[in-house]
Amino acid sequence: MTADRDRLARVVLSRVMEPGDPRVNGLVAEMGAGRTLEALLAQDHDNVVREAAQLLASCDPSRELERAAARGIRFVTPADDEWPRGLDDLRNADVLHGRGGIPVGLWVNGPMRLDRLGQRVAIVGCRASTTYGDQLAWEIAADCAQAGVCVVSGGAFGIDQAAHRGALAAGGATIAVLACGADRVYPTAHADLLRHVSSTCAVVSEAAPGLAPLRVRFLSRNRLIAALSGGTVVVEASTRSGARNTASWTTQLHRPVMAVPGPVTSASSSGVHEMLRDGSAVTVVSGAQVLELVGASGQHLLTEPRAPERPRDRLDARHRQVLEAVPAVRPAATDSIATAAGLGLLATRTSLQRLAGLGLVVEEAHGWRLGQEAR
Amino acid sequence: MTADRDRLARVVLSRVMEPGDPRVNGLVAEMGAGRTLEALLAQDHDNVVREAAQLLASCDPSRELERAAARGIRFVTPADDEWPRGLDDLRNADVLHGRGGIPVGLWVNGPMRLDRLGQRVAIVGCRASTTYGDQLAWEIAADCAQAGVCVVSGGAFGIDQAAHRGALAAGGATIAVLACGADRVYPTAHADLLRHVSSTCAVVSEAAPGLAPLRVRFLSRNRLIAALSGGTVVVEASTRSGARNTASWTTQLHRPVMAVPGPVTSASSSGVHEMLRDGSAVTVVSGAQVLELVGASGQHLLTEPRAPERPRDRLDARHRQVLEAVPAVRPAATDSIATAAGLGLLATRTSLQRLAGLGLVVEEAHGWRLGQEAR
Repeated sequence: MTADRDRLARVVLSRVMEPGDPRVNGLVAEMGAGRTLEALLAQDHDNVVREAAQLLASCDPSRELERAAARGIRFVTPADDEWPRGLDDLRNADVLHGRGGIPVGLWVNGPMRLDRLGQRVAIVGCRASTTYGDQLAWEIAADCAQAGVCVVSGGAFGIDQAAHRGALAAGGATIAVLACGADRVYPTAHADLLRHVSSTCAVVSEAAPGLAPLRVRFLSRNRLIAALSGGTVVVEASTRSGARNTASWTTQLHRPVMAVPGPVTSASSSGVHEMLRDGSAVTVVSGAQVLELVGASGQHLLTEPRAPERPRDRLDARHRQVLEAVPAVRPAATDSIATAAGLGLLATRTSLQRLAGLGLVVEEAHGWRLGQEAR
Repeated sequence: MTADRDRLARVVLSRVMEPGDPRVNGLVAEMGAGRTLEALLAQDHDNVVREAAQLLASCDPSRELERAAARGIRFVTPADDEWPRGLDDLRNADVLHGRGGIPVGLWVNGPMRLDRLGQRVAIVGCRASTTYGDQLAWEIAADCAQAGVCVVSGGAFGIDQAAHRGALAAGGATIAVLACGADRVYPTAHADLLRHVSSTCAVVSEAAPGLAPLRVRFLSRNRLIAALSGGTVVVEASTRSGARNTASWTTQLHRPVMAVPGPVTSASSSGVHEMLRDGSAVTVVSGAQVLELVGASGQHLLTEPRAPERPRDRLDARHRQVLEAVPAVRPAATDSIATAAGLGLLATRTSLQRLAGLGLVVEEAHGWRLGQEAR
């Protein structure tokens, strides 16, 4: 079978079969698109398959490609250089909610080549996000984009749109993976955003142009968001959120799942906290921590936050003990300091002299008080 | 050595040595309080020890006990029935920040017997807490106290006081473990709170009566909060917070450390998120989740939160696919629904009839729309 025939068979499958159908994708992975198509056409088990066969037979793949091209949409298959290799890991992943497998192809709308994305991170979350979540998704996306990491999300309300916008604001790359055809605008309120993404980066879908965003297609779509990315960040997710489905796909693909905690009083963070609790995600609080996990090894090393060292940190325990017994303002006599510190007079006096040398205490007429360095 | 002589030797050690001195506590665990005292008196290595020996020799333990009793304070040692056995685990814990070991005794102010506390949980956090943290500490403490679990904390500003107050408001038990003597009120702003705790429950300290709350004593104190409890909950903690020291002690004692996430934009939660990130704490978001970890095995079992099941959840994938292609209000014809769903006419019609039987769709003159059950 020529490369061209393979491509056309994939177009037919993409048009007629439900995106993410694990049986079809499994057959294609096993015996190729052409033989899968032939096998499906030859089947006559029940009414449903017979109807599918009629659809298969009536589909004109060349015309599909022409119509897509007229809308600026190309069809990328595993035979193309542009094919993002990360998708191939889906072959060994389980089926989740009846969806799975390597897609037969991707419909792509936009100038960005999928094989030239470099590092990628998915940033996803619930539609009913809070200002807190939107702000964090935006900031983390901006940090990642600025570091040259492409931000992948689903174009939805809430966290998704904040992630896309953050990446764009930082002048970086972002990809919207849709559950409907790559020619459609869903949600319609994001027409401007999606147009911007498709004119500068790429809008991608497994669903053939024109297909509507059915619920089952979101489940298929989520696996592509995960498979196109080196890891997934969940910013806000309720207990029942599609973002958790994307996280499950990421785990299936053995890539890191990260979650940003929020107030436990916020329902929009409840799913995130369940993920942290059951160990299916690691805590991240910043773009830098995300980069550390999805970047090339050693590229985005983090310095753990440490409080600044103070002069007293370098003291040994006994000197610290004396220092703490010295009053801040009103001077105290050596014996009173010794009593408060629970130490003998001699040890206390020796300590005070050492502390005075460091500027931590000051001797005055009536005793000792804290010095400038101890404030 | 009689039990009485052991007690008196412990009084002397408690009065004269710094609380939580791991060398002294180690010697006591090895050879008993009396012989430790004799060994210290016999030492003459340097000036510091000589001064300590003078203090040791001049201490009158019987008078110490009398004076403490006059203030309503008793001295509890491992020889007493009241000794809380959980403290003995400190024998095998490491030394942290120069502190460690089983305390020589506890000075206790309050009617509650330490051996009759039942299950206990430490709830700690930063002094500079937010309203969010205070509210959560209060609620978790109240939930625990209501379930009969005693709340242990440090009497400090912020999270500590909220935890004590939550437990008291629920009519439960709470223990304040102080870094100063059990007779002292620190911080002074908590005079009423600490008086209430000491009159109904117990204020406890390793430091002899009268000792001031030096910084080093907080580090010793934190190990007792951990050792008196079956687990520790950190509600809010900055990067450099004493609560993290209590958490480290809890880990040393092989007891669960729990942490309540918060907004990542809040500095008061930064230490908590570091703990979640490095795996030193597990996420908890409610008193019920805390009880599950510190309660007796199987006593406080949790039901994981699940979204309520909807009729559509029971449908198979194909029926769901059809259902989603049915418009909510304006009826659509079967063929238009079939196109949107990406299915054949026959399969779609069969599905619609099944969905109508479940009340999920309704057939009208011009086609199908969603039924009551699908809203």
